[in-house]
Amino acid sequence: MEAYLDNSATTRCLEEVTDKMVHIMREDYGNPSSMHMRGVEAEKYIKEAKAFFASNLKVNEKEIYFTSGGTESNNLALIGCAMANRRAGNHLITTSVEHASVLNTMKYLEEQGFRVTYLPVDEDGRVSLDALKEAICEETILVSCMYVNNEVGAVQPIEEIGKIIREKNPAILFHVDAIQAYGKYHIYPNRQGIDLLSVSGHKIHGPKGVGLLYVNKRVKIRPILFGGGQQNGMRSGTENVPGDAGMAVAAKCCYENLDEKIDRLYALKDHFVEGVKKLPDTRVNGRTGRDSAPQIVSVSFAGVRSEVLLHALEDKGIYVSAGSACSSNKPAVSHTLSSMHLPKELLGSTLRFSFCFDTTEEEIDYCLQELSELLPVLRRFVRR
Amino acid sequence: MEAYLDNSATTRCLEEVTDKMVHIMREDYGNPSSMHMRGVEAEKYIKEAKAFFASNLKVNEKEIYFTSGGTESNNLALIGCAMANRRAGNHLITTSVEHASVLNTMKYLEEQGFRVTYLPVDEDGRVSLDALKEAICEETILVSCMYVNNEVGAVQPIEEIGKIIREKNPAILFHVDAIQAYGKYHIYPNRQGIDLLSVSGHKIHGPKGVGLLYVNKRVKIRPILFGGGQQNGMRSGTENVPGDAGMAVAAKCCYENLDEKIDRLYALKDHFVEGVKKLPDTRVNGRTGRDSAPQIVSVSFAGVRSEVLLHALEDKGIYVSAGSACSSNKPAVSHTLSSMHLPKELLGSTLRFSFCFDTTEEEIDYCLQELSELLPVLRRFVRR
Repeated sequence: MEAYLDNSATTRCLEEVTDKMVHIMREDYGNPSSMHMRGVEAEKYIKEAKAFFASNLKVNEKEIYFTSGGTESNNLALIGCAMANRRAGNHLITTSVEHASVLNTMKYLEEQGFRVTYLPVDEDGRVSLDALKEAICEETILVSCMYVNNEVGAVQPIEEIGKIIREKNPAILFHVDAIQAYGKYHIYPNRQGIDLLSVSGHKIHGPKGVGLLYVNKRVKIRPILFGGGQQNGMRSGTENVPGDAGMAVAAKCCYENLDEKIDRLYALKDHFVEGVKKLPDTRVNGRTGRDSAPQIVSVSFAGVRSEVLLHALEDKGIYVSAGSACSSNKPAVSHTLSSMHLPKELLGSTLRFSFCFDTTEEEIDYCLQELSELLPVLRRFVRR
Repeated sequence: MEAYLDNSATTRCLEEVTDKMVHIMREDYGNPSSMHMRGVEAEKYIKEAKAFFASNLKVNEKEIYFTSGGTESNNLALIGCAMANRRAGNHLITTSVEHASVLNTMKYLEEQGFRVTYLPVDEDGRVSLDALKEAICEETILVSCMYVNNEVGAVQPIEEIGKIIREKNPAILFHVDAIQAYGKYHIYPNRQGIDLLSVSGHKIHGPKGVGLLYVNKRVKIRPILFGGGQQNGMRSGTENVPGDAGMAVAAKCCYENLDEKIDRLYALKDHFVEGVKKLPDTRVNGRTGRDSAPQIVSVSFAGVRSEVLLHALEDKGIYVSAGSACSSNKPAVSHTLSSMHLPKELLGSTLRFSFCFDTTEEEIDYCLQELSELLPVLRRFVRR
């Protein structure tokens, strides 16, 4: 049996997605910038994809920009806003548990002379609203906070953050990295006070190499790539027509009967968490149930090194992740887990299990069964 | 009948390419950063693709970086090198006939305090080597020149430029935008004195949304996107595995029996040029034959507006381009044609015909036939 439980690293592309992409690549392969029918045809796919995302997020389609993925979306949001609003202030706020594409972009901006505040989180990985209130100052131009944490599935209080920002200073921009949330939550930037929102294709059963950034029309932002002026000059480069269209198909599939699918996913997650808690010396990190994302469970296994357990599970056809897999291969201590003050001895003993709508109860049971057999064996061979 | 003669705007994806991509997206869909087998499997595709390009360019595979396309490759080369080598000097050199992704990136770098020299070209669109020699100064850190011009097919004297740079100051970096040349020429950066080389997937029957940048190991360069540290930290973001692998398949197909295919393409081009020259009041811009790229012909039709002829041809199923199609839709006066001192009255009367290895003599003859019928009619209705 096989169980791919690493869906927060990447997902399998849907057949509807690859069918659409192949059709475009083989038949409607024009360049949207071409003036003839082949170009118009290609442009239509881009327009349709933007229209879908606009309606799904209840925003205007002119506020949707396609990018090469979540990393570029986050870079564009942060660098683009920081550079364009420098005159208004040089202070940026984010959290200590963001994805590397936010944290390392913030580091770059620090080198460029910006001051960055990294908000702490509680033991569940949730950002401190008091710390946010304290951090906001006259120089603050942007707050960036992820919706769902990629390592532990903590859900940030996005609406509260949006509210605090609006109360303190409505000119401050609010960027949300929704890469692990989109496709699982109903997200409405206007209602939630979100000015910029990052989405990635390959986390929602769409293609790799494509993402989007929602940018509220009020936002002053500068491009980070220069060229032919596509997408209103915000993102030059020939549009990835099959990728953009494919991502829209994937999103559409995700949002079909979303609530039912999410109920099922929570039931699956609860079932897994219950099973895991029965295993001795294990700890589920962060909140569980509806207080956490439906697809992510972080578990620490005392006395077992993450990589050892990861490879032992791999031998059984079970694929999981040590920390987040979205960074380069080097195993490093997770900044999310250490920010949550996880006991030191558990930092290197933690695995992430991440599910998708196709995950079955059989797979979960198989994983629990293998864990219960492997853990005593592995622990026996660990030197203290 | 149909004739897609806009292959320099974009090409049809090969079936071998989409087959490979679908297989990866549906079966081997792992994240190359994942530590388990699914990740290793995915990483293998990236390694294979890099190995192919390295062997094709006779460089080291560690010198190949995948990007989201030609625009990003050019941006990374120029911004990355300019920012990393600022201490050595603030002068950059390029030509007046570059693609917008070079010209507009240079404009951005001017805003950042760099001085940029735009070399003139002769009436054939070839850059002036004397002007290059004069322009190079102690402050010069980078020269960027395209291999094949996208609008007229002019081939730049790349090796001579490389030689001049090495003679003047071997520390100056030489970037070549080979987006219209790769897949048509044997390119060997080490022999040709090229330090950085940009390639795009969708110009060679590969996927959109993917490209590469060759960076010689001696080059000091800084990333322009920050995140998980993929590709040795030079290009963060989950690798576009199907895109990268698809582009490698496309390139491999292009380079199979390349010389034979190029001979055939030149014969086709010669045939088209001969036919066009027989039409009254037409002018083929730039050099022809082996002195020009095999796939691009720029033709001015006195007394007919480009868009009018473009749409008249479109009605007949013939798809061509007015100027380059790689920029946003707005028809603007071509900077390449005006740099070549094309008579003003012809600037708005010029079309680009661009072929691919699948273009047939029948398509060429059909196009010539339709041109010969349309031109007298359109000219009759033109008000002077």
